[in-house]
Amino acid sequence: MYREELKVFDCTIRDGGLINNYQFSDEFVKAIYAATCEAGVDYMEIGKKLCESDDYTREKYGKWNFCDEDDIKRVVDSYEGDYRPILAVMYDVGRIDFSALPPADQSVVGMVRIACYVADIDKGIELAKRCKDHGYETTINIMAPSAAIETDLIEGLEQINEIPEVDYLYLVDSFGAFYSEQITSYLKLYRKHAPNKELGFHAHNNQQLAFSNTQQCIIDGVNLLDATVNGIGRGAGNCNLELLLNFLKNPKFDVRPIYKVIQEQMVPLRKEIEWGFNDIYGISGYLNQHPREAMRMRADKKNQDNCHDFLIESLSVE
Amino acid sequence: MYREELKVFDCTIRDGGLINNYQFSDEFVKAIYAATCEAGVDYMEIGKKLCESDDYTREKYGKWNFCDEDDIKRVVDSYEGDYRPILAVMYDVGRIDFSALPPADQSVVGMVRIACYVADIDKGIELAKRCKDHGYETTINIMAPSAAIETDLIEGLEQINEIPEVDYLYLVDSFGAFYSEQITSYLKLYRKHAPNKELGFHAHNNQQLAFSNTQQCIIDGVNLLDATVNGIGRGAGNCNLELLLNFLKNPKFDVRPIYKVIQEQMVPLRKEIEWGFNDIYGISGYLNQHPREAMRMRADKKNQDNCHDFLIESLSVE
Repeated sequence: MYREELKVFDCTIRDGGLINNYQFSDEFVKAIYAATCEAGVDYMEIGKKLCESDDYTREKYGKWNFCDEDDIKRVVDSYEGDYRPILAVMYDVGRIDFSALPPADQSVVGMVRIACYVADIDKGIELAKRCKDHGYETTINIMAPSAAIETDLIEGLEQINEIPEVDYLYLVDSFGAFYSEQITSYLKLYRKHAPNKELGFHAHNNQQLAFSNTQQCIIDGVNLLDATVNGIGRGAGNCNLELLLNFLKNPKFDVRPIYKVIQEQMVPLRKEIEWGFNDIYGISGYLNQHPREAMRMRADKKNQDNCHDFLIESLSVE
Repeated sequence: MYREELKVFDCTIRDGGLINNYQFSDEFVKAIYAATCEAGVDYMEIGKKLCESDDYTREKYGKWNFCDEDDIKRVVDSYEGDYRPILAVMYDVGRIDFSALPPADQSVVGMVRIACYVADIDKGIELAKRCKDHGYETTINIMAPSAAIETDLIEGLEQINEIPEVDYLYLVDSFGAFYSEQITSYLKLYRKHAPNKELGFHAHNNQQLAFSNTQQCIIDGVNLLDATVNGIGRGAGNCNLELLLNFLKNPKFDVRPIYKVIQEQMVPLRKEIEWGFNDIYGISGYLNQHPREAMRMRADKKNQDNCHDFLIESLSVE
């Protein structure tokens, strides 16, 4: 599948960091950065840019939850090649300090992605405007649309549609609940109510559908595609970047550096932290549930594989 | 997705047995049988029915490679409920002894599936006729069509189309190489050249697409769908039965017994034998290769995760 407009967005560090409180070594982050450079990936999200507080400290939550300019620059300067992806950071509505964001011309970052629930779309739009005024590309990633009341979602889409400062609008399968037919149906809804916006997609792999749903998005005309090296990400993880690059067949991409960084960095990491499909996440995706309960179950080493118990319990709660 | 004609075919024991030379305990096989009964699955394949020889012994290759009537009966008699799936066994062309197959009215088996490569379709047809004369439902499962020369494949399809003794014709993604668009395109080819045949589909999960490709087949009108409990099967395994039943939403199915047998039988088994997606199988699927080399790599404990090495080596062989 080759389409020139297609852009691949790596969010390995940002989504992977949700598993380990962003306790990645500098060496690891540099290796992922270099791999995305060499692979020709279009964007790389290097973390969140949240607000530090007494409860939410750098020690406990890791430097890539805060993305200081100096930390990012060290990563950027560690690589010597020419081609660079546009760097992005993520804003969580309500947890940020806008004054800490330098103007884009004084930053190595080129895009700010704003994650918000439907209820916070107004706040998301406000932030997008301010980021755009600062010179950044912007996205709004509406979280958990599969659990939103449709009229509220539509209202939000129509608002975003009128805001020229929002470059991309994301369909996000937060709970890993979508089948391909629902991807198509939600994209129709997004297109109908936000026809001015270029669309992006962020998958989760609860039902082994992250990669195939990303393909469905491509078929349905989405041009900005999230993926992570080895599918790392909270819970069941994301669309595997290496599978996606294999699929795309665009000569500007080279998958080999991605497999190299998997072999050298991800294989050891997989012994320390867990991500990816398993039965428990499969059930939470099928039930369109927040992965919270599933993650709690997986953290309980004694019962973590008791999928039948989890199903029965989840059904009785429903 | 609800369509009355859809039938689900469990091949847990037959495809899972390829990993461990069919060394399943009787307790395990009885538990899978009971689970498929309680779940309301339409068919269950309990093994292969191959020919024993000095080189290919029951001790080494396991009783479910030979499927003696008495062995199957013991499993069937161990379950007391009313509903039973139709039992199937698999024939590999060239490795069977037809005289060992009793007439269907003297057997608990109701279907014989015949697996053959394109080059052996004539032999497959011959066997299907004999099985049908004996009273069995029959299928022909053409292996590795993704690696066949299209004119040969078309000739085979046209031959099968003329044989009323073949009940189902299977599209088989032997190498786990198909994307959804190729599923659609192969199904068009099968329909064009074998319009008289009802179609089945058997996936492999090399690129995390077994489940989604099975969904694509449903969308494209295929009515007989293979799956295995927990996706067990050679290499990257198959479409997960539990995910498929969740998706189908047909009230005749109950997924709970499947999750129960996963929790009780599959979780311990996963500590003994390996199946499912990993980087190495992902590469072999992408390259449309027989999984032979990938399985060899995975068996080499020291190098089994060296996916970059595997990619480079595979590309240099290509």
